[in-house]
Amino acid sequence: MADILQMTLLFDFYGELLTEKQKMIFEMYYLNDFSLSEIGDELSISRQAVRDQIKRTEKILLTYEQKLSLVKRFNDERLLVREIKTIIEELEKNNEFDKPVIEEIEKIKEISDKILN
Amino acid sequence: MADILQMTLLFDFYGELLTEKQKMIFEMYYLNDFSLSEIGDELSISRQAVRDQIKRTEKILLTYEQKLSLVKRFNDERLLVREIKTIIEELEKNNEFDKPVIEEIEKIKEISDKILN
Repeated sequence: MADILQMTLLFDFYGELLTEKQKMIFEMYYLNDFSLSEIGDELSISRQAVRDQIKRTEKILLTYEQKLSLVKRFNDERLLVREIKTIIEELEKNNEFDKPVIEEIEKIKEISDKILN
Repeated sequence: MADILQMTLLFDFYGELLTEKQKMIFEMYYLNDFSLSEIGDELSISRQAVRDQIKRTEKILLTYEQKLSLVKRFNDERLLVREIKTIIEELEKNNEFDKPVIEEIEKIKEISDKILN
């Protein structure tokens, strides 16, 4: 259906605003890779009903992002942190620093990874 | 009432999920520093009604944060970026780098500020 990565991100941010049932079907489909038929069998509803539920949930998540733009805000920050990491890696590659400087550079790389992981 | 800084942050993140009226009263009180009486006069409602509205809105915002923890997530990332900035500033202060290295360090400081501002 919709873009898996985007939907997974939206779910990670706004999933707790969904009902338990919406969450469960969304997780089965997007995170556990069940087919519509398999979910339908599991819940004793039609394949089409599952599809409708997922479509509705996608719309809810997209509406939250349209209103709040928090996934975008996070991603924008991550891009900047990635820029920092690239600059620091280039610095390390192109210079012969003393050991104490290299240690601090390693710290910065670790912190960047912590943010980006 | 509640902690102004925290409420302003919560409003910045989740404000778009409030009704127009909730937003207006919240902004008058927390962002434009109107008193309860002034807001009441403006909207022709009692001081107590304004107070109840604000309390209710605070609770809604707090509930969003309890569910989503997105303000916390942002703040945690900011703390890490601040750590990076501190390390890079110390590096600059304690070493005699060549001009090209200093230029890259300045770039990292700029990017950090962009995230932190």
